[in-house]
Amino acid sequence: MPDLNPDVWTCPLPLRDYPHIVMGHGGGGKLSTELVEHLFLPAFRNSALAPLGDAAVLPPVAGRLAVTTDCYVVRPLFFPGGCVGDLAVNGTVNDLAMSGATPLYLSAGFILEEGLPLADLGRIVDRMAAAARAAGVAIVCGDTKVVDRGHGDGCYITTAGVGVVPDGVNVGVQQAKPGDAIVVSGPVGNHGIAILSIREGLEFESRIASDTAALNGLVTEMLAACPDLRAMRDPTRGGLAATLNEIAAASHVGIEIDEPAVPVDDEVRAACDLLGLDPLLVANEGKLVVVVPAGLAEKLLATMHRHPLGTRAAIIGTITDRHPNLVVARTAIGGRRVVSTPLGEQLPRIC
Amino acid sequence: MPDLNPDVWTCPLPLRDYPHIVMGHGGGGKLSTELVEHLFLPAFRNSALAPLGDAAVLPPVAGRLAVTTDCYVVRPLFFPGGCVGDLAVNGTVNDLAMSGATPLYLSAGFILEEGLPLADLGRIVDRMAAAARAAGVAIVCGDTKVVDRGHGDGCYITTAGVGVVPDGVNVGVQQAKPGDAIVVSGPVGNHGIAILSIREGLEFESRIASDTAALNGLVTEMLAACPDLRAMRDPTRGGLAATLNEIAAASHVGIEIDEPAVPVDDEVRAACDLLGLDPLLVANEGKLVVVVPAGLAEKLLATMHRHPLGTRAAIIGTITDRHPNLVVARTAIGGRRVVSTPLGEQLPRIC
Repeated sequence: MPDLNPDVWTCPLPLRDYPHIVMGHGGGGKLSTELVEHLFLPAFRNSALAPLGDAAVLPPVAGRLAVTTDCYVVRPLFFPGGCVGDLAVNGTVNDLAMSGATPLYLSAGFILEEGLPLADLGRIVDRMAAAARAAGVAIVCGDTKVVDRGHGDGCYITTAGVGVVPDGVNVGVQQAKPGDAIVVSGPVGNHGIAILSIREGLEFESRIASDTAALNGLVTEMLAACPDLRAMRDPTRGGLAATLNEIAAASHVGIEIDEPAVPVDDEVRAACDLLGLDPLLVANEGKLVVVVPAGLAEKLLATMHRHPLGTRAAIIGTITDRHPNLVVARTAIGGRRVVSTPLGEQLPRIC
Repeated sequence: MPDLNPDVWTCPLPLRDYPHIVMGHGGGGKLSTELVEHLFLPAFRNSALAPLGDAAVLPPVAGRLAVTTDCYVVRPLFFPGGCVGDLAVNGTVNDLAMSGATPLYLSAGFILEEGLPLADLGRIVDRMAAAARAAGVAIVCGDTKVVDRGHGDGCYITTAGVGVVPDGVNVGVQQAKPGDAIVVSGPVGNHGIAILSIREGLEFESRIASDTAALNGLVTEMLAACPDLRAMRDPTRGGLAATLNEIAAASHVGIEIDEPAVPVDDEVRAACDLLGLDPLLVANEGKLVVVVPAGLAEKLLATMHRHPLGTRAAIIGTITDRHPNLVVARTAIGGRRVVSTPLGEQLPRIC
């Protein structure tokens, strides 16, 4: 036991004396205040957050409101290409962008496990702040609760997002029409395989990183070029398969995809082959699927190719009035198979 | 093992075949869809939620936006007077109301533990829906994640709230001025003692119930009668003590309270005496503290007394320019004591 030297103690106890999260950090008292003042405020600093009122009060906005929320319980907290923090920002920004909204504000709710190293929380919060800056959104309010050691898994984050849908923008999964083209913004499966590789200690030839990214910048360019986008969705849990089935069901249409046209990185394809996974079912965190009138598809594709997050965008299929509610893939060897929604998720706790 | 009778099986498996939450309910596939379609949608039904887009798209609103969030990790999930579900609605509605906003929309993020009985989730969701109806807000979007058995504690809920601050309303914790009166809307300490009694299996003479309630109706009446309210806050975690200290610190003023004037139910006082707790530090979930110019205090009090949630409202103290940042209580025997912010929370996992 080290010698105790009360001379260097201060009161109230500063954050540095608690290198790990303790129950009191969620108690609404001095320890909570220290966490807010020394960790969250400096990282997220903005004028709406600063007054620390019960709610952030923000300027009026013009246009339809968009509101969304997602919980993030990914295991492990840190993985190649990101962590739970940037996932929580990018995922909610993307949900707003998919509805055609300009993302403006995020809230952040933290459920922390007693014993989480403060240094880990600091890294998570720093990455959230960086992701918010990159996406052009402000984290304007938050809450922290602490649960007993052994409960939780270090850090669960729930973000909610508020945005505004510009006049004239009207995208929705129920608007796909026979003849429309289906475009995906880039190679699929990277996020899920990145999580799996780190979780299971798998070593692939080259390191596969999560594709977590905010898509609102890409969407802005797409809408500027083609205001008549029909439907947009980011294929996260359940992958491309779940997303295409959702569009088919919501629009009461069939979908045909050309499986070899779906971009998949060689390393991801090799990992999927090895593990018996279907890349169409693996989660993505920085990709989108968009349905567009066929006549606009090439123009949209050219626009996407000019954006860093769309360089490998590809037309992967069409909407059809045959087989409503069914997604059918033409395989590389010329066969046809039904691509159905998974019952659950191939890889649990992926986001 | 019962005889298997595949004749009565259906595909996909309906919700009733899974009486408990399984990992797949958080996987974004068919099981997730069943949970949404058979449980969340019927309970929360509203036109914004129904399209199940990535974000809810809502009509434009006029006025400043208010945004807030809170995580709810209360143990146990059900307690006298409420459950985690109504707490999650009322708490977030109240945070909006405390900033002078009219609450409009809520998001709801569920982190469920594998094995949670679906019947329990159903009860929680039903109470959320009832609380939302009572408060006049719509739950417009949500997300569900499932964590492995032994992690989580059945059900964590994070709600975010969006409201609009009417023109002319301008309340904030930094606006208290020397001479102002401090009013509390009713007896304090009931929520914390209700949780403690059920958690520890304590039996008091009469059952103490949580005060969880939405305060936005009361606040509307208060603002109509006295548009010049300075500051409002709901004394949740950390109780009245934390809230008064927050107001003192934010406004750089001192606070004097008359301790015998603070309403406390006899049963709550007896329980606090028995357990060595200070009622000023115990959490509330349906009370508010308001700072008002002294000349308006009696008018405000009369207004509050006419509302069901304010019948026992009382003036408990004044703002002073003596001892800035310090809250001082005059005790029943004529002494004075400093009421400081607790370091953590006397009772962890209270909300």
